[in-house]
This record gives sequence, C-alpha cells and structure tokens, in this order.
Amino acid sequence: MIPPTNAPVADPLLAAVRCGVSVYDLGRPLSVGMPQSPNHPAYWHSLPRRHGDMVRSDGGSAANDMITMGTHVGTHIDALAHVSHHGRLYGGADAVEAGRGGRYVELGAHTIAPMVRRGVLLDVPRALSAGEGCPAGYEITPDDLAATEAAQDTPIGAGDIVLVRSGWGRFFDHADRTVYVGLTSGVPGVGEAGAVWLADHGVHAVGADTIAFECLRPGAGHSVLPAHRVLLVERGVYIIEAMALEELAAAGVHEFTLVLAPLPLFGATGSPVRPLAVVGNG
Amino acid sequence: MIPPTNAPVADPLLAAVRCGVSVYDLGRPLSVGMPQSPNHPAYWHSLPRRHGDMVRSDGGSAANDMITMGTHVGTHIDALAHVSHHGRLYGGADAVEAGRGGRYVELGAHTIAPMVRRGVLLDVPRALSAGEGCPAGYEITPDDLAATEAAQDTPIGAGDIVLVRSGWGRFFDHADRTVYVGLTSGVPGVGEAGAVWLADHGVHAVGADTIAFECLRPGAGHSVLPAHRVLLVERGVYIIEAMALEELAAAGVHEFTLVLAPLPLFGATGSPVRPLAVVGNG
Amino acid sequence: MIPPTNAPVADPLLAAVRCGVSVYDLGRPLSVGMPQSPNHPAYWHSLPRRHGDMVRSDGGSAANDMITMGTHVGTHIDALAHVSHHGRLYGGADAVEAGRGGRYVELGAHTIAPMVRRGVLLDVPRALSAGEGCPAGYEITPDDLAATEAAQDTPIGAGDIVLVRSGWGRFFDHADRTVYVGLTSGVPGVGEAGAVWLADHGVHAVGADTIAFECLRPGAGHSVLPAHRVLLVERGVYIIEAMALEELAAAGVHEFTLVLAPLPLFGATGSPVRPLAVVGNG
Amino acid sequence: MIPPTNAPVADPLLAAVRCGVSVYDLGRPLSVGMPQSPNHPAYWHSLPRRHGDMVRSDGGSAANDMITMGTHVGTHIDALAHVSHHGRLYGGADAVEAGRGGRYVELGAHTIAPMVRRGVLLDVPRALSAGEGCPAGYEITPDDLAATEAAQDTPIGAGDIVLVRSGWGRFFDHADRTVYVGLTSGVPGVGEAGAVWLADHGVHAVGADTIAFECLRPGAGHSVLPAHRVLLVERGVYIIEAMALEELAAAGVHEFTLVLAPLPLFGATGSPVRPLAVVGNG
Repeated sequence: MIPPTNAPVADPLLAAVRCGVSVYDLGRPLSVGMPQSPNHPAYWHSLPRRHGDMVRSDGGSAANDMITMGTHVGTHIDALAHVSHHGRLYGGADAVEAGRGGRYVELGAHTIAPMVRRGVLLDVPRALSAGEGCPAGYEITPDDLAATEAAQDTPIGAGDIVLVRSGWGRFFDHADRTVYVGLTSGVPGVGEAGAVWLADHGVHAVGADTIAFECLRPGAGHSVLPAHRVLLVERGVYIIEAMALEELAAAGVHEFTLVLAPLPLFGATGSPVRPLAVVGNG
Repeated sequence: MIPPTNAPVADPLLAAVRCGVSVYDLGRPLSVGMPQSPNHPAYWHSLPRRHGDMVRSDGGSAANDMITMGTHVGTHIDALAHVSHHGRLYGGADAVEAGRGGRYVELGAHTIAPMVRRGVLLDVPRALSAGEGCPAGYEITPDDLAATEAAQDTPIGAGDIVLVRSGWGRFFDHADRTVYVGLTSGVPGVGEAGAVWLADHGVHAVGADTIAFECLRPGAGHSVLPAHRVLLVERGVYIIEAMALEELAAAGVHEFTLVLAPLPLFGATGSPVRPLAVVGNG
Repeated sequence: MIPPTNAPVADPLLAAVRCGVSVYDLGRPLSVGMPQSPNHPAYWHSLPRRHGDMVRSDGGSAANDMITMGTHVGTHIDALAHVSHHGRLYGGADAVEAGRGGRYVELGAHTIAPMVRRGVLLDVPRALSAGEGCPAGYEITPDDLAATEAAQDTPIGAGDIVLVRSGWGRFFDHADRTVYVGLTSGVPGVGEAGAVWLADHGVHAVGADTIAFECLRPGAGHSVLPAHRVLLVERGVYIIEAMALEELAAAGVHEFTLVLAPLPLFGATGSPVRPLAVVGNG
Repeated sequence: MIPPTNAPVADPLLAAVRCGVSVYDLGRPLSVGMPQSPNHPAYWHSLPRRHGDMVRSDGGSAANDMITMGTHVGTHIDALAHVSHHGRLYGGADAVEAGRGGRYVELGAHTIAPMVRRGVLLDVPRALSAGEGCPAGYEITPDDLAATEAAQDTPIGAGDIVLVRSGWGRFFDHADRTVYVGLTSGVPGVGEAGAVWLADHGVHAVGADTIAFECLRPGAGHSVLPAHRVLLVERGVYIIEAMALEELAAAGVHEFTLVLAPLPLFGATGSPVRPLAVVGNG
C-alpha cells in the first residue's frame, strides 16, 4: 500500500494542507475572572464531577463541566441580531417582533455560515509607527486604514475578513482586569467613518483586539456604538471582538486564510469563537 | 490597483481557497431541549436583554444572551482530561491531583491545539450495505473499519482525523428526545477493538455521529466506556461526538480538510465545537 | 443575672416560641436530577472550589458553589407575574409591557411579602378515605374541599394559606423521575371550580404536593392551566407547588402557623421556597 | 358557623399570630449587578419566556426564569461545610473526603434545620454612639458586644441567634458596587475574639450586615477569616451574611422571633436566605 502521505491529492486545498500549514490561534483562553463587559453574564466554569468522585466497575472515571456565560465574553462574534437601530434589524425586520419567543430565528448566531475566507490583518500601530499600540480613546480613521493597507500591500477585497489591530490586546492579561475593558480610560478603535470605509470595501466580517469594535472615548463607555450600527444594522457585516492578534502581528503575517466556525447557538445574538489564521508553508 | 482577486497568491492554501471551497458543517445546532446525556448540565439559553428593552440615546439597542451548559452536550470534543483509568490520566499523571483547584491545567480543553488536518469519513453503513444505518447496539469492528477504508479507497494515515458514520445521527431530531441517546435501545458504534485499530493507525482524533464514541449495548447505558479508555487514556487520541455526518455522506465526500477549533475553556474536560469538512473545488 | 430563659417576655409570639414549637419542613431538598417540568431550566449544582483546592496561609480553606436553575423547580412559589390571560396580568396591566427590560418590576417575586399566617392543611385523601392518595388525573372538587374542611373542623378564613394534599407527593422520590411530573399519566389536583371556591374564601395563598396546582388530565400535560388563571390572574392568590406534605399529614396537623419567605429575586416570576408549618407546643 | 377569626385557638403560637405580628425583612433583594464577592459566581437572572412569547389555546401565557448564582451572594447562610481548617471540618471529618462526589453530604446546606428561635440584634453603633456605623476596618470587640448587650438589656442565651449590626449595610446600595465589599477600604466587624465570645454564649447562629462576618483590615481582603474558623469549624455556629438590619435597628427592635429557612440545596456550602424578624403585637 502506498503510504497516504505520498499519494497524489486531487483536492488543491488538501494538497496545500499536506505541504504543511502554520496555524495562528486568534482566540483568547476562556477563564474565570478574565476581563469582560459587566453588561454580560460572566464566564464561570466548575467541575461537577472530578476524577475520584465515582469510579466505574472497570476502573474508569469521567470528569465533566458546568459552564455559564454570556455570548459576548472572551473572543466572540456578533450575530446580526445583536444590534438594532430605531427598532429595525439588518434587512429591516422589526427588532421586537424578531425576538418573540426568546430567540432570534432569522438573524441569530446559528445563521452565521462557517467562514473559510481570505483574511487581512491591518496592523495599524506598525504602519503608523505607533509603538506598542494606539493610545486610549484614539479613533482609527479611514486614512489610517488606507495607509496601513498600502504600507502592507494587502489590498482589501470583497468578501474578505479584515482584522484591525490597535495594540490594545496587550492589556488582556493585565493584573487589573478593568484596564482592558477601559470604561474610564477609553479604548482605541475604528469609529463610524472607518466602519463605513470597511463596509464600502465589501468585507464579510471585521475583527479587533478590543472588547468592542469601536473607538471608546474616555468615560463614555458603551453609551453609543456607531460602528456596530454601521456594520451590523446597515451593512450586514459581522464583528469579531477580543481577538488575540499579537502573535500574528509579531510574525508579520498580514494575509492568510481565516477559518471561523461560530457555535450554532440557536437564536442567540453572538457566539464565543476561536478564529484561526492559517498560512500554507508551501 | 489590481483587483485582489486577480493578484498572484504565493500561499498555496490561500490560492486554493481563492479557487473556491465547499464547506460541510459537521456541528449540530445547539438548542434548548435537544437530546443529550442526563449526566451533563443541560444546554439552556435565554435573552436577558431583548431589543426594545432599553434604547440608547441615538436609537440603538443591543440584545444579549445567557447560556448554561455542560461541555459534553451538542457536538463536542473530549479533552484528554475527560477520562481516567485506575486513577491515571493519559501520560500517567494522578487523576485526582490533576483536578486540584477545579480545573485540569495539563490536559484540559485549552490544551487541544486547533486542528487543520486531513479528514477521512468512514461511511460504514454505505460500505456494508447497511441501509440507513447500523442497528441499535451494533459494534463496528476492525474488519468493518478496514472494509470501509478499502471500499472507499481512503487509506488512513498518521495524524488524520477519522470520522466513523454509523447512521444513528438520523435520530438527532427525532420527536422523542430519548431515541438518539438510546440508553435503553442501545446505540451502534466502535468498541474496544475498533478503537485499538484506529489508534494503531496513528490517528490524531476520531469522531462519530452518536452521543458517545462507543458501542452501547441495549440497557447497558454508559456503565463502561472501553473505547474512551483506549483512545483518551491509553493512546492520547481526541474524541469528537454527536457530529452531523449525514450531509457529508450524502455528498459522497470521504476525504477532506478537517478544521476544528475547540473553545479554549481553561481546565475543562471538553468543549462544544463546530467542525468543518472543507473541500477545494480546484 | 437572671437567666434569659426565665425572663418574662412581653412579646406573646416570642413567649410561645420559648415554650417550644414543632417545625414541619414543607420544602423538598433541591438535588441534581430531581423531578421537574422540562419547561424550566433544570436545577444543577457544582462546587467550583472544594476543600484542598486552595489552602490559606493560616491553614483555612473555603469551598463554594455554582447553581443554575429555573425558579419553578423544587418547592416554589409563583409570583403573580407568572401567568397572564388575554395579555393581562393581575390588576389589568399589559403583560408584554410589564416584562419590558427582562424583569417584572410590579408583580415579580420580590414583591411577595413574607408570610406569617394561619395555615390549613386540607388532607383530601384522608377525609375522602382515598387511601394513599387521589388517583392520577382526579379533579379535587369544591365538594371535596368543603367535605375535608368540615371533616377536619378547620374552617378556612380570609387571609389563610390553604395547602391541599392529594397524596401525589409520595412519588417525588420515585426511581422513575417522570412519574411525579405525570405528563402522560395525569396528576390529581384542584381544577377551575376548586380554585374559585378557595379564592371565594379569601385565602392569601394556596399550596399543593404536585408539580402544578392543577388537575392534569392524562396526556394533556400543561396545555391549559385554569386554576393558575383563576388564582394568579383573576384573584391575586399566590400558588405554592411541589410541597412536602406527607409528614404534616402523618402527624395529623391541620392548622398551624405557616411561615414563608420567598427569595426576593428582583423581577422574577417565582422563587424556590422552604415553607414551614410551625405549631406551638403550648 | 363561628367565624374563624373569633374561634378560640389552643396553639399559643397561632394565637399570637392571630393577634397580629410585625414582620421585619432581613433579606436583600437579589438583583443583577448587586455587590458581591468576586470569589463567587455572580447572580444573574433572565426570562427565557416572557408573556407574549407563546399564548396557549385558551389565551393563557406563562413567563419563567433562568438563574445562575453562587450561594454566598446576597443575604445568605454559611453551612458548616463552607470552611475547613488544617484539613478538618466541624466535628473532625476529613474535609477533602467530605467533598468527594461534588457535594457535602454530612454538613451541606440541606442539613441546616429551619430556625424558629429567639433573635437578638446587637446594635453596636447605637450602643457605642458611633453615629451611622463603625468605621472601615474597625474590629468589634468582646467588650463592645458586652456593652451593647447591657445597654440594650438583651441578655444573650443559649440557642439564640445574634445579629451584630455594624452600620456598614448602608453601603449595600451605593452607586459604586465596590464600596460595600470593601476589599481596599476594609470593613468593620467581629474578629476572632468576638467570635469566641459569641460562641461561649452558646448561640446557634450569628449574623452581620456585611459581606463577611469578619473584621476586614484595609487591603487585607479575605486572606484569612478567623471568625469563620472559630464559628464554623471549631464551634458549629452558623453564619448569616449581608443582612438588611437598618429597618430593624431604626425601629429599635432588639429582641424578636427569628425565622430562617435555608433552601435545602443538597450538598452545597451555603444558601441564599430571607431571614425574618417577627414581633407579636400582642
């Protein structure tokens, strides 16, 4: 029998995988006490059964888990049902009616198709020579996005997934859990104009290394979320938040295959995810 | 500017993606009331905030979620920490000590590396001409596995992920939620011998369309789980359960790129997942 | 110093307590796997931290809990907000508007005042010589209630809390968890006419030893709940369910002080409770 | 028929109740966002079903709840299983062994008998002329307790439940949720010596208006908990925390019947409670 690894492979995708790939993990570990918005149920984990609690007749033992959480905690994706404006969801549906029954049947997390698409990392602080990252409250403008795109030579195409690095992700593991959330300090990010710029490029989804894909002004908190409105309500572009982009940026990888498979939580407004940036070694 | 879709792509993986891919979704939707083992906390979802509950000054409104669940519900992967035998985990660590602190630091779900690997579907009922599926309680033997591998001409290689279809997945949506779990009827699946056969091929992970990767005899329930012991404890092979394999089988796709990114739930014994089978259209 | 136990006590209540009281526990233990309606999130408990997980510098260690549950599981009380009819709550408020914001501010569980009131046990099977209990699906009629009241010589007064024993509570610990819930068999209980009879006596609250204060016909499940409508929506009478009445009945105690303090769960539709029947030993 | 309210009542307790009672609610409302220790799963509530979601054939509709929480949140009682010292629980049992199986069978919350007992409020700030309350970090000493007992003329007896008011409860509703918890500021309370003094009086349970029945020094947090050790581990005295004592104190009620019925959460280390102080109007 010819060893399978030498067999000719008709599928070009599988052939590329066979040649070796580098996988960058863009998801944050979910752990009790991690920084998150107080607007959402906190992530908690416990082991109802541990090894040693109950041993089967054959010497076997199984441990298991109990989890409680919101869906907008940790690295996660927003379903289109997450935000409405003046009572309307993306596509115009009545937002109150859409939630009748306690789940969003039409635009819930279960309707997000798995993504296997070209991904682009816009490493804004690197292109702008902003050191470790953009300052708190800094608004990443269309000019910043265009300059980064050009500096990297990674033109954004329709259907792409664009990840905007602000550098704020370095605070995710800060001892003071409130620093990353930044409700008082503010957080850098794309504002309304940048969201329009991205949507005008026809992107399928956008991501950021911050808790919200927004520019949060110091002290303003989450009072208004214009980028969410533009992307989720007006343009139907998914948002991925609290991504881990440092390793990818350090490796200088600006273009890749992004694979993302949200949990199909029926009727939910979002899902925790572990997005992958994959590069063929070919 | 040259349109990105025409740009030459050095990355063979991305080039293959650019040529188009077919994505098969192997994850079941997570919904309240779906069949699951009573040994694990049931999946529940609720919307603490719906649209219309609170409207921001600019007309915006956000809805959000509250989830509670075990990690071995819906389509999920078992971490190596899930099962122990005679007090030992894979690698020999003391299973009780390993769980000290309420999380499995060494072999928990967060230690499962994302997978981008060759996947093989062993469509047993098709190869064995077993109609819609193997009967309740049927043990899929090494001979069955080898016959299926041969009939399909899909030799299993080291590092592959092998998905064994029994056909039982057609009951996932049965009106009687107890049918799929099959505690009284029994459930078809791979037994100890088949698990050894798979591990001997050097597979990285295995999957099934049943709630447990086991042959469950009628009335025996989950009293002993020999395939789990072989795979998780003795051989370090991950197990994926409650997969949706019907669409893939119907399409006759037996070889593909499998992408799986478990949630990095720190210290947990498993994670819900949405595995993807991806095929390049090349 | 005069020993406190001999001190004269001005408060007649405390004086009675000092003379000794018998306390009957009318609440069921809450444990994982107990029978409950599938319409509500199941009760689950886990220990995130156990002794030995983390020991403080002084040798101390604390264990703690994680709970998830509905509020209509175990022994519980229904807030008036639990049920509406034709879109109206008790008092006429619009039921949809009342829940805006994800909590019932006006008629939620937090609005149930603690109860220290005369309680009456109507031991129907005993008065009707129905052996261990009324048969499945049996409707306890106004005549049954009146006959029991008379046989016991416990006239019901305005403001009382009346507990109606059907005998069905003996199935709470049945090995088959579905027996107590009785969705297919039916469950005995007070129907619409009996609910009117009780409300006409001006009772403050009613209780039962069944999962619902209703007569459930075989196979009908919880499709319509007329006693709930009469009591909660039309008359403002609280309902206590899944009570443990066997010990009280066995002791032949038909009149007592009932103390009930629902958890003030802000905006919830009910609360788990542990009602007490207290009798002075005089 | 003689109206029940005029009927002679043989039960002195019920007779006292019939004469009228004043009920003081010593439990805090449970609401999302209330102050609590970060060591415990936060209280969260959601309505999976609201009125209007699903209307039955007869026009009826039921709303229901989903709760997740620790047991040491809101007003709660500590079971004896909550704390161990040098690996031993109250009575000497091995603390690790006692939790085998994920529940404390012997000393869990379900083993706390309902309480109908004499209660004494020691209003320390009033007796000590400490204005609104004891200062942050102040240790309430045995002398303080004795002075308060004497000033009030409420000698403490064996079997009593003694509630120690520090005045700190006025911060429970403070806009800054961290003030009540006081991890940095410190919190006033009974220390080791006071705990011994109380236990030496043979009390059955003690309570406080703070998140922990301890004197917390500024910045020390919950690093060591000597009063817990004395009471729970050495003396078998229950602890009630986060009580609402302001109304009772304002009314000048120092002696009463205390009724407390913890939820019988099988195997848990504590339970939320709504304790009542009841006074006969006699």
